[in-house]
Formats: sequence, structure tokens, C-alpha cells
Amino acid sequence: MKRINLNADLGESFGAWTMGEDAALLQVICSANIACGFHAGDPLVMRQTVHTALAAGVSLGAHPAYPDLQGFGRRPMKLAAAELEAMILYQVGALAGIAAAEGGRLTHVKPHGALSNQACEDADLAWTVVRAVRAFDRDLILLAPVLSELYRAAEAADLPVAGEIFADRAYTDTGMLVPRKQPGAVIHDPDALVDHVLRMLDAGGVVSQSGKVLSATMDSICVHGDTPGAVDSARRLRHALETAGWQLAGLTAVVAGRA
Amino acid sequence: MKRINLNADLGESFGAWTMGEDAALLQVICSANIACGFHAGDPLVMRQTVHTALAAGVSLGAHPAYPDLQGFGRRPMKLAAAELEAMILYQVGALAGIAAAEGGRLTHVKPHGALSNQACEDADLAWTVVRAVRAFDRDLILLAPVLSELYRAAEAADLPVAGEIFADRAYTDTGMLVPRKQPGAVIHDPDALVDHVLRMLDAGGVVSQSGKVLSATMDSICVHGDTPGAVDSARRLRHALETAGWQLAGLTAVVAGRA
Amino acid sequence: MKRINLNADLGESFGAWTMGEDAALLQVICSANIACGFHAGDPLVMRQTVHTALAAGVSLGAHPAYPDLQGFGRRPMKLAAAELEAMILYQVGALAGIAAAEGGRLTHVKPHGALSNQACEDADLAWTVVRAVRAFDRDLILLAPVLSELYRAAEAADLPVAGEIFADRAYTDTGMLVPRKQPGAVIHDPDALVDHVLRMLDAGGVVSQSGKVLSATMDSICVHGDTPGAVDSARRLRHALETAGWQLAGLTAVVAGRA
Amino acid sequence: MKRINLNADLGESFGAWTMGEDAALLQVICSANIACGFHAGDPLVMRQTVHTALAAGVSLGAHPAYPDLQGFGRRPMKLAAAELEAMILYQVGALAGIAAAEGGRLTHVKPHGALSNQACEDADLAWTVVRAVRAFDRDLILLAPVLSELYRAAEAADLPVAGEIFADRAYTDTGMLVPRKQPGAVIHDPDALVDHVLRMLDAGGVVSQSGKVLSATMDSICVHGDTPGAVDSARRLRHALETAGWQLAGLTAVVAGRA
Repeated sequence: MKRINLNADLGESFGAWTMGEDAALLQVICSANIACGFHAGDPLVMRQTVHTALAAGVSLGAHPAYPDLQGFGRRPMKLAAAELEAMILYQVGALAGIAAAEGGRLTHVKPHGALSNQACEDADLAWTVVRAVRAFDRDLILLAPVLSELYRAAEAADLPVAGEIFADRAYTDTGMLVPRKQPGAVIHDPDALVDHVLRMLDAGGVVSQSGKVLSATMDSICVHGDTPGAVDSARRLRHALETAGWQLAGLTAVVAGRA
Repeated sequence: MKRINLNADLGESFGAWTMGEDAALLQVICSANIACGFHAGDPLVMRQTVHTALAAGVSLGAHPAYPDLQGFGRRPMKLAAAELEAMILYQVGALAGIAAAEGGRLTHVKPHGALSNQACEDADLAWTVVRAVRAFDRDLILLAPVLSELYRAAEAADLPVAGEIFADRAYTDTGMLVPRKQPGAVIHDPDALVDHVLRMLDAGGVVSQSGKVLSATMDSICVHGDTPGAVDSARRLRHALETAGWQLAGLTAVVAGRA
Repeated sequence: MKRINLNADLGESFGAWTMGEDAALLQVICSANIACGFHAGDPLVMRQTVHTALAAGVSLGAHPAYPDLQGFGRRPMKLAAAELEAMILYQVGALAGIAAAEGGRLTHVKPHGALSNQACEDADLAWTVVRAVRAFDRDLILLAPVLSELYRAAEAADLPVAGEIFADRAYTDTGMLVPRKQPGAVIHDPDALVDHVLRMLDAGGVVSQSGKVLSATMDSICVHGDTPGAVDSARRLRHALETAGWQLAGLTAVVAGRA
Repeated sequence: MKRINLNADLGESFGAWTMGEDAALLQVICSANIACGFHAGDPLVMRQTVHTALAAGVSLGAHPAYPDLQGFGRRPMKLAAAELEAMILYQVGALAGIAAAEGGRLTHVKPHGALSNQACEDADLAWTVVRAVRAFDRDLILLAPVLSELYRAAEAADLPVAGEIFADRAYTDTGMLVPRKQPGAVIHDPDALVDHVLRMLDAGGVVSQSGKVLSATMDSICVHGDTPGAVDSARRLRHALETAGWQLAGLTAVVAGRA
């Protein structure tokens, strides 16, 4: 039985400002990466997101970020390792506390924005993230882009890790995301997006823009809900996966089933 | 055997700014109320405070506050109940996450500043605090001023509660703190402070400025480290308590021993 | 010649989050109250708002608030007078600096949310606001609700003041806004809204729900852009005012023309 | 007549936390760089600092920073140019507003911490800073380290610029500060510090650790008040300068006198 996970970033509203189509996405995904207040989300948004995710049977993950509300966690920063490690613990703990109050538990952690981008390329930073997650709970799954330093650090640290690909992003020949400014970097057409994902799953690895295949363990597919048509694309992707014989599953089941 | 607890607020530095004499206080107290980032403390300060408290054998409590770094959590505010409840969960969870990473566990929660002051007088607010603590972990002890709405709400909710008196503050005939602006509100003289505490413990209740006794269960005495001489007064109080036959104990032991 | 001003709150986006229909409103109003970063707005949003307002010939006002991004400045607070005065100076100065960079100047200041609500009822707070504005520039106009303590404080301090009524809110017999929770507090129907405003302008004062008239100098009408249909109502109001012979004018012209 | 300026960073307290020996430094320096709330300072601290600086006859400068209270503006960041430019305008405007309320005017702007360090090496970033200052007021002086990209950008933009050397820092052969981690980077001994400055002033340029002279226009010397003995070193430096025939002067006089 082939199992695959669908994940998305949720709970990115803040105070009076709303963002994303969380209610619709919850009908499509298996796992939610919930903002923890540093780039988005506030305690009340976090609680409401946890509540609705649990009601929809979607598993809970922390989505920690740099302390950068105004920049939505997308500004590259350079923090001391001890400080960043403590910040990640703080955010994961805060969400875990809110989850506990709603009768839930975290299944995973997925870094956000610039923190994720930088940790995918910088092995030291990757290890800082891994140390934080492991110190909090060594059974939590780190959800990390395939072929990244972050993925490798988790593997080397013997932390449970799930490999993630992006449904709407093209890849370079080295397995990195094509920078957004380059042509074809973002796949907007729903059919092309579905084909892109199925091709990678069939090939057993990332397929670059030029057609090169980089073998990788793909456990989860990241979809979005913050652009027009994104939720519809996600729905079509889920339907196509099911039609192709993939069973949608929680991260824990996918990672366990792989072993 | 007569047991009593000594508590103090710790970890109130922030970033490049330091505050308090935490290292000295840790040699005197049994339980620490650790700032959670909303009025003071940042993730790194929190982790360092947890680390040194555990090393000193001092138990860990969360010290949640209104979101008010600039006002040090002392500005009265009015927050929606659901929002405040989520904020308390967030802060307690964040500290619990950091404690877990250091191999520790929280024993208690003590609200800070304006949140505490307002919850001591406003029963609805008191219930909001109690609901948050109970939702997080119904075995956590709420450390609350004796004779307050906060104490009464915890009792009514069947949440473990420890009654606190303040070593350096005079009380009114209704058991409230004499407002700081009135003469004699704050007891600076170390001998007077020690006498004040011993008199209340002997009387089995709060002793007001006029000499009136209000019966109360006194489990813990709050001392301070943020004014000149405060740590020395705390040391002398601890010595006087031991001389008078009191056993200094953790909050859990005091509350359990009382039952 | 009868002159009247239309004002609205603009620039209430923040970072990645957008709010309001600023572009549409700028075609309707004469004066913009621009968020200064404490309840909404960030430096870039402020600059873009100043730029588009100047391009549309709309005059610039500062919209200072309590320091409360998460609560959108709607949480009641209690700040020391000296601190609040400095906060208002800070916000007004920040916007004035950005306006200067765009070749513009501020014409007025209008407090936001809970700061405004509390200053309308609390004379001490009203004086704190007036002192801040006067210390910055004694020629700035304070835009204040008619019949409020804020209006009275500005008059008593000899600060230029413009009286404001709300197009979509019903009034009590004492000239206060009917609380939002009461029936009929908010006027949603565009025709009723237009009638409400014209009736007050004809009567020369606030007309309460029960029909009572409270004489007041009405210089400006506040319209909104943050609810469905609000901009359309604002457009219809402007058209109705022009048809009724009112000349739409900047605050400075209205206040000067009145003298 | 040889004129020289002494400057220091002031107003770096925040809320309940204090930092620096501002009162003592104000007796030594001619020009203050006042924190604007992004790395330190809050509106009330800013107003008090402006007030005491004016009373001491010390000229007022803005000390803008990255938005990073927790990291004291020392964390390297990467911000979009338009966003950073707006942030600088915001901070300079806020301080100018507070200065106006106290009857003062800004004479200069000096970037803080990581913003300054990065702008000294990155010409694009330097130009962003220069554009912001020039857009606010093209007569403001930019106080910039000698031999830096920041200095060069101001010169090229025809913005008034004052060249700054650091009394307690050693220089490399390329005129950069020796990194703090290297031996001898910071000059703690008061006599050595005084000698270092006098030697550079005599040589008409920066003197590196190895004795190399790099010609530079030196208008101002930066002293500190945040380490033990720093204020005393500053006092001795001032005395030695006066003894050597230098006239201590405001930045405006130094820059004007140079022309």
C-alpha cells in the first residue's frame, strides 16, 4: 500500500487580520503546520486553528519561525545558535500547550520561511533546528524538504524525519527550488501541478525542470491556500493521488509505514 | 512538622537588559516564578533561568502576564476572556516546553503584575485564569494571594491552590495590600519584615496594619530581589523561619502536606 | 457656502496582511487618518498610504493608538499620562517624517479605537491627548467626536478642533454612540445612512435615535471602508451631500471657513 | 582653530530596564545619538533623553536601527530597500517629533549596530540609508565611520557627512575595525585609548594596529558609557583633547568649519 501525506501551513491570521482559506484546506490535507506567533498567528488564532484541525482529523504540527511579524518570517536573519534553539523550543512549547488544552498532541515540526530556507542550505543552522526539536520531544517528526541539509541533519541525529516536496514549485538539477524570480518557478496551472507531483512520485524522486531525477524519500506534499485557485488545485491533487492508488495518511503512519 | 514555601519572580531580564539578582535569590527560595516573554524574559533568558533553577533545586513555575513588554505587565488592560485564556496557555506552554528540554517540569503558575492584581479583585477574570491553568494541566498548582478572588476561583474549581502572602507589604483590614502610595505600604526594614511574616504565621492569617487578623491558609511567602537590600532581607527571613521551626519546602510538598 | 469634510481611517494593513479598500475610499474622502504603526500600519504601508493620499489630493492626518497591534488598538488600557503623551508624539512624528519625505504635511490628528473612546469620556485622558498634539504643532487640527470630552479639551486648550459625526452610527439622547450591541446601533442601509447624516446637518446637531437634537458644530463625517458595501455607502453619501449643496472641503478649509 | 566632536549613543533604556550612564556622559560629549525605539528606547525614554540632552547643551541625533528589540539591533538582517528606507524615516521622524515637543531640532543621524556595520560594507545598503536621511531633511548630517561605504555614499549624494572614529577600537590596515574576537580589538586601558585617538588626530587619519596611516577626515570621536570605566575614559579623553588644543564643538560647527 502506497501512502502519502498532504500538508499545508495554517493559522496565519493575526489579530484583526485574516489570511488563508483554512476551513477549505482542512478538508483536503492530512497534516497542518500551525504558525506559532513569531511570523503569524496569535494565541487565540492558534487555539482556534488547533480546535478546527482536530475536529477535521488533521494532525497538528508546529511551524516555528524567526521573530518577524512584520516580515512574515521571510527576512533572512542571523541569530546565535543558543538563542534560535530557545526560540524554537518556546514556539513549539506554546503550541503544544494550546494543543494539550484542546486534547491534542503535536505530531511534527516544520520550520517556516527564511528559517527553513536558510536551514536547508546551512548545515550548522540545520543542526540547531534539529537540536531544538529533539530536546523538546525526540519522537516528534521533523518535516523537511527532501535533499536538504535540514533533512540530512535530522537523519544523522536519528530524529524521525519526513521528506517533503512542493506541489507548485519547479526544481533545479541540484534538487533545490527554482528561485521565484525565474520563469516557471511557480506552477500555477492545476493540471501541470498534478502532473508534476505524479511524475515525481512515479520516478521515486525529485524531477527537475530539465527532466533530471534525483532519488529521494517523499513522504509529504506541501500545498497552499493563500493564492487564488490554490485550494482548488490542492483538491484536484488529492483526487488525482487517490485515483492513482495512493492512500492519504497522517505523517506518523507514513513515516512508520516506510520503515 | 510546619512547612512553608518561599517564592520569588525570576528571569525578568530581556535581551541586552538585565534585571534582578537571580543567582543570589536561588540560594534562598524554594520556588521560582519565571517570566514567559510577555512582560519580561525572552526564550534564551527563560532557558538559562530554568537551567539554573533546576541546578539549585528550585521548582519551576510559570509567571504569565499581559502582553506588555514596555510596561512590564503593570498596565491595567481589558482583554476578551477567550483571548486572555489563550495567552496564558501560550505562555505556560512555552515555559513548559523549555523546561522539558532541560529535563524539568512545571509545578505551578503565578500570574504577574496587572493581570494578578485585576484577577484578585475580579471574579470573572479569576475564572479565566483558572480555566487556562486547568485546561493545560489540572495538577498544576495555582499560586495565588490569600483572600483573593483568584484564590477562591481556584478552590471552587478544585484546582490545586497555594495561598501566598507578601513579606514586604502591609495589609488592609479587608486583607488587601495597602496601596503603594500610602504610608507604610512597603516594609523596607529587614527586622520589621521578619516580624511581620512571623506574626502572620503565628496568627494563622493575615495581620492588617491595624492589627486585625484575617484567617487564611498561608503556604508560601513572596520575597523580592529587585530592590537594594531585598535579597539580604530574604536571607534573614529564611533564617528566622528555620530558627522558628518552619521547614522550607517545595509548593507540592506544602500543598500535599496540608491535606 | 456650506462646507463639510469626509474622513476615513486608512493604511490599516500590516506586513503581509491587508485590510480596507483604501484606493476606492481615496476617491470619496477629503481627509485620511493614517495608522501610525501602533495598532496597524508599518513604515512601508504608511509611506505608500501617504503617497497615494497625496496623489489623490486627500489631506494627511495621524491616527495614533495604544500600543496594541494584536488587539488592533481596541483594548482598553490605562497608561501613565507622561507615557501616553510621549507615545502620541512618537506616532505623530513618525508619520510627519514620512509625509515630509513625500513632500506632504499633516493637517490633523485623530485618535484611534480605545484611546479615542476612553478620551471621549475621560477629561484627564482628553487633556493628555491635547497636550501631545499641541506640543508637536499647535496649528494641527484635532479631529474629535462632537460633544465629547476630547472636543471640549481641545477647545479649552485653544487647539484647532474639528467636530466629527459618524455616518453609520446611531446616537443616544446624551449624544454618545449607541453601543454596538444594542439594536440599531450601526446603520447598514445606505439610504438610511444618507438620511441620518442629512438630518443631522439640517438640524445643526446630533439627532438621537429618539429624535432629540443636540446642537453641535459638525465639520467632518467619518465613513468606513472595512465592511461590505461601506465604500458604496460612502460614495452615495458624498453624492447626496453635493446634491444638497454642500461643498466637500479639506479640514483646514472647513475649520477656517467656520471662524 | 582645530575643532573636534565627541559623540555617544544615549537613551538605550527600555521600559523598566535601564542601561548606560547617560547623565554622566552628557557632561562629556557634544552630540548624542538617541535610540528610536527599534533596538532600544521607548517614547518616554526618548523624550526624557531629549530633554536632558537639550538641558546639557548636547545636540540631538537619531540612532535608527533594525527592528530588533530582543537582539538590541545587533542581528544581521536583510530587508528590502524600500522597507528599510521607510523604517529609517519612521524612526527619525518619531525622534524629530519628540524633539520638536521639547523645543529642539535634530542635527544628525547615525545608524546603529548591525544596520551600521552592514551599511559600512555594502554600498547598496549605504545608499538606502542615505536616501532615507536625504528624503527626511537634506540638511541633516550623516555621522558615519571614516573610510566606509556609508561615508562614501553620503559624500557622493552631497549629503552633509561627518567622519567618525572609535576611541576604543583598533583598526585593520584597510581601515576597518578589528573584529571584537581578535586580540587587541577593544582598547580598555584609558591611557592607551587617549594615545590612540591623539595619534590618529596628529596623523590626519586612521592608524592601524600595524602602524599604517589611512588618511581620513575625522570630525567626531565615538565614546561609550555602557562598560565599567568607559565614562572615566571618555572624561580623560576630553581633557586630553582640550589640553592638546582641540576645541570641542557641535557636529554642525565641525562640519561647517571644515568647509
